Amino acid sequence: MSEQKKTTIVLFSGDYDKAMAAYIIANGAAAYDHEVTIFHTFWGLNALRKDENIVVKKGFMEKMFGKMMPRGAKKMGLSKMNFAGFGPKMIKDVMKKHNALSLQQLIEMAQEQEIKLVACTMTMDLLGLQQDELLDKIEYAGVAAYLADAEDGNVNLFI
Amino acid sequence: MSEQKKTTIVLFSGDYDKAMAAYIIANGAAAYDHEVTIFHTFWGLNALRKDENIVVKKGFMEKMFGKMMPRGAKKMGLSKMNFAGFGPKMIKDVMKKHNALSLQQLIEMAQEQEIKLVACTMTMDLLGLQQDELLDKIEYAGVAAYLADAEDGNVNLFI
Amino acid sequence: MSEQKKTTIVLFSGDYDKAMAAYIIANGAAAYDHEVTIFHTFWGLNALRKDENIVVKKGFMEKMFGKMMPRGAKKMGLSKMNFAGFGPKMIKDVMKKHNALSLQQLIEMAQEQEIKLVACTMTMDLLGLQQDELLDKIEYAGVAAYLADAEDGNVNLFI
Repeated sequence: MSEQKKTTIVLFSGDYDKAMAAYIIANGAAAYDHEVTIFHTFWGLNALRKDENIVVKKGFMEKMFGKMMPRGAKKMGLSKMNFAGFGPKMIKDVMKKHNALSLQQLIEMAQEQEIKLVACTMTMDLLGLQQDELLDKIEYAGVAAYLADAEDGNVNLFI
Repeated sequence: MSEQKKTTIVLFSGDYDKAMAAYIIANGAAAYDHEVTIFHTFWGLNALRKDENIVVKKGFMEKMFGKMMPRGAKKMGLSKMNFAGFGPKMIKDVMKKHNALSLQQLIEMAQEQEIKLVACTMTMDLLGLQQDELLDKIEYAGVAAYLADAEDGNVNLFI
Repeated sequence: MSEQKKTTIVLFSGDYDKAMAAYIIANGAAAYDHEVTIFHTFWGLNALRKDENIVVKKGFMEKMFGKMMPRGAKKMGLSKMNFAGFGPKMIKDVMKKHNALSLQQLIEMAQEQEIKLVACTMTMDLLGLQQDELLDKIEYAGVAAYLADAEDGNVNLFI
């Protein structure tokens, strides 16, 4: 009787390409029957934002962070060769040409594959992000929950 | 009889936010009774620098690196939205407001929890950093020592 | 009877310093008898490019990526303090002074130590890189092969 393998990813980065890498590995692991968790913290939370403007009550600093950070997967930039938004356009064009899934589609697939998408409550607080601003069917937890998953993980990555 | 779990983190990055993430995970793991090591290499060494100017004998290149790199946790920038130092100020203000621990406090807590803080001797050499410039109670080792820890680690991250 | 330990590294980054860290850890692990794989994806593929211009048939976008990305280890920039190419020169000077191996030499050593160097075929497609443009004796595989290695890995890192 073999135990189920486990993959956990901390998604810290808010870069489109790094989030893509995280979701490709996660979806791959789920396809190989791993139990998979992606723990979104700091700028990685932006991948989980809804792309419309959600009106919530916030302090000044929190509003500023909210404005400055990209709203959702579609609006994230690249870690390299961003060229003021031109890089992401190139990557997306080339992805369409090769029939590669967009980050948004990879996130949807992750939800269909029942990958656990977790938003780090501590950094949500810091950046002033509220649950209404994030996608549905997300879990909310802190570093303790992450560690409980990761300590039995076969593959643990920080991206 | 259960064995003690083990967490190791390579802190390569010199960004304030990434170092915070490293120290939050490390302190969390120590609170859950993991044996924890943070191996500071390349720019991650800056988190261990004392914040005063320490006079040591150095070559020209080593002096330049010393001047250009941030002296200690307080002076590190952000990986995203640094805005010439404005970003770190915003983050620190918001952290104070939410009573979150600063990076400096997280490092102190790590030392109180007996997390092993290691400085990579090979990159100290390259960047011209000397032991007098780094915090007290740091260990000094190379990649072999890191691997000896990591190969039995439950959670191994590169940040 | 003890099993052979295993280290896997996803090299996502195209930064000279991060690739150095990856190859130093990999070579260290191989020296301690680990079975080691470096899976090069996205910008990390640039470390495997030959440094001459290889003429291959490509579409327009693929040509542009090919021009904009560094051709091989020698031409990669730093993640910090790149200063329009001055930073890498400083690091290389200081490495020479300390008799540290260059990234190119670290890659050669990795091949001598039979570290498995894998190029991610999916991102090769996206970035328009072809096998003729990459070093000899590289393996070509996708995320499934990476996961098959990593799920039994003792040390798994994303760099």
